[in-house]
Amino acid sequence: VIENRHFLIDCGEGAQMQLSRFQVPVQRIDHILISHLHGDHYLGLMGLLFSMHLLRRTKPLDLYAPHALGPIVTAQLHAAGTALCFPLTFHPLPVGPSQVILETDHIAIETIPLLHRTPTYGFLFREKPKPWRLNKAKLPPDLSWDDRNRLKEGKDLFSDTGQLRYTNRDLTLAPKKSRSYAYCSDTAYNEQLMSRLQGVDLIYHEATFLDEKELQASKTFHSTARQAALIARGAGASRLLLGHFSARYKDLQPLLDEARAVFPATDLAIEGESFTLEE
Amino acid sequence: VIENRHFLIDCGEGAQMQLSRFQVPVQRIDHILISHLHGDHYLGLMGLLFSMHLLRRTKPLDLYAPHALGPIVTAQLHAAGTALCFPLTFHPLPVGPSQVILETDHIAIETIPLLHRTPTYGFLFREKPKPWRLNKAKLPPDLSWDDRNRLKEGKDLFSDTGQLRYTNRDLTLAPKKSRSYAYCSDTAYNEQLMSRLQGVDLIYHEATFLDEKELQASKTFHSTARQAALIARGAGASRLLLGHFSARYKDLQPLLDEARAVFPATDLAIEGESFTLEE
Repeated sequence: VIENRHFLIDCGEGAQMQLSRFQVPVQRIDHILISHLHGDHYLGLMGLLFSMHLLRRTKPLDLYAPHALGPIVTAQLHAAGTALCFPLTFHPLPVGPSQVILETDHIAIETIPLLHRTPTYGFLFREKPKPWRLNKAKLPPDLSWDDRNRLKEGKDLFSDTGQLRYTNRDLTLAPKKSRSYAYCSDTAYNEQLMSRLQGVDLIYHEATFLDEKELQASKTFHSTARQAALIARGAGASRLLLGHFSARYKDLQPLLDEARAVFPATDLAIEGESFTLEE
Repeated sequence: VIENRHFLIDCGEGAQMQLSRFQVPVQRIDHILISHLHGDHYLGLMGLLFSMHLLRRTKPLDLYAPHALGPIVTAQLHAAGTALCFPLTFHPLPVGPSQVILETDHIAIETIPLLHRTPTYGFLFREKPKPWRLNKAKLPPDLSWDDRNRLKEGKDLFSDTGQLRYTNRDLTLAPKKSRSYAYCSDTAYNEQLMSRLQGVDLIYHEATFLDEKELQASKTFHSTARQAALIARGAGASRLLLGHFSARYKDLQPLLDEARAVFPATDLAIEGESFTLEE
C-alpha cells in the first residue's frame, strides 16, 4: 500500500484464498505485478480475475507481467466466455535493462533484471522526494497559498520587487524520508544488485536454500540465505526480508540465523504478516 | 478408481493442495477429465502438471478437455520454459452428441452433453459386462483352461464330437454387477438426462441453489437441489450425490432435505469423503 494505492506482487495458486483468509479486500488492489511465469508466481492470477469479475468490480486494474502472459490471460477469458466487467490493462514488462514501468505523483516503480531460468523481473519501488513541511510555530500570518506551496517546494519567498521576504529554512522542517522497497523474486546470486539497490530501505530477496546447498542454488538459479544477506549488506540496505524457502526446510530458523550472521536486520517473510516502512 | 486406473474429474484452483491434504497420491492419476473451462473446474490443472513434473513423473498422463484447453496448456508450459518429463496426451472432447472417449477392457467412458453457458461435458462411466463366476463347489476336475474361459464367457461346454458336456448355468454363478457412474457437472435442468442416464447406479449432479432460486438457477444455467433429485428419480438411479453448492449456503442441510423429499437416496459430496460403489 503506497498513498492508498494497493499493489499485489506475484500471485501463486490459491492467492485469492490466502488474501481472503488474511482479510485483504481484493477489490482494493489496483496494480498486479508478476515477476515471472513459473507456476508458483502466477497461477493464482486467473482465479483472482474471475473472482473480481464475479464480485462485479468496476475499478480499472493494471497488470504488469512478462509479455507471454497477455495471450494466456486472453485465451482463458475467451475459453470461459467471460468479458470482464472491469477494465484490465496489460502492460508487458520491457525486456533488457532496468526501466521505469509506472510513475505517479508520489512513486516510481522500475524493473530490476534478475538471473533466473526464465525472464524474471524484480521491482524497485521508490517514493519521490516529499515536500518540505511548514513549521506551524514559525509561520507568519500573511502567507498566501502560493507562498505556502513555494515553501513546500523548498523555495525562499520574495516580494514583487524581488526583495527576500523569508528564507525557506526559517519556516520549514525537512521533508519526510522517501522510502524505497526492492522485491527480488527468484534469482541466482547476482552481485550487480548491490550497486543497483544502494541505500534501499527494505529488500525482499529469495533464500531458497541454506549455504550448504550453494551448488544446487546456482544450478537452479536460486540463492542461499547467506547470499541474500550479502546482497543486503553490499547494498547498505536498512532491512532484509527473506522468502521463497524450499519445502525441504520445515524449520526456517537456520535460514534466518545464517542470514543474520551476515546482515543482522533480517526477518522472514511469513504468510499473513505485514511490514510497514516508517517515514 | 476403476480396475486400478485413477481418474480425476475437474481440477479447480488449489486441487493439488486438497489432494495432498487428503493424502491422494497425485502420481497415481492416469486420466484427467475436465468438464468445462470455467475457472472453478480447471484452474488447478497447471499447478498439478508442474508438480507432477517436479516430482519427476515418468508415467503417461491422458487429459480430456474442451479443445480450447490445448493451446492454453501449451502456452503456459512454453512461458515457464518447461518441457514435461512425462508424456501428456491431450484429447479434445468431441463437440455434439454423446460419444465414447475412452474404452479399456473393463470400462467405457462417454460424454454427456450438458446445458451450460460454455461448452460443458458430463461423463458416464460404465463397466463392461463381467465374466460369469466359476462355482468352485460344482466344478468337475477335468476342466482345461480353455473350458474355464468358455464358462466365464457364459458358454456351455461341448465335446470334440459336438455333444453337450456341461451346461454353463450348472457350473457358474451370475456375473458381478457392472457398475455405472454419471458425473453431471454444471448444467441447467435438463429432462433429457432422465432417459440418457436410465438405471445408472450413481449420479453426481450439481445443486447450486435451493428451489426457491429456480429463476436464478435457470438464468445462470445451474440447477436446484430439487431438480437434481428429479433427474435421479426420473433416471431410476440408485444413488444421488449433490455438489457445487453456492457459497451463499453456509448450512447445506436444506439442500439435502429438499432433494431427499424427491429422491431419498441422496447424499452431499463433501470434500475429502470417498464413495465406493459395491459390486
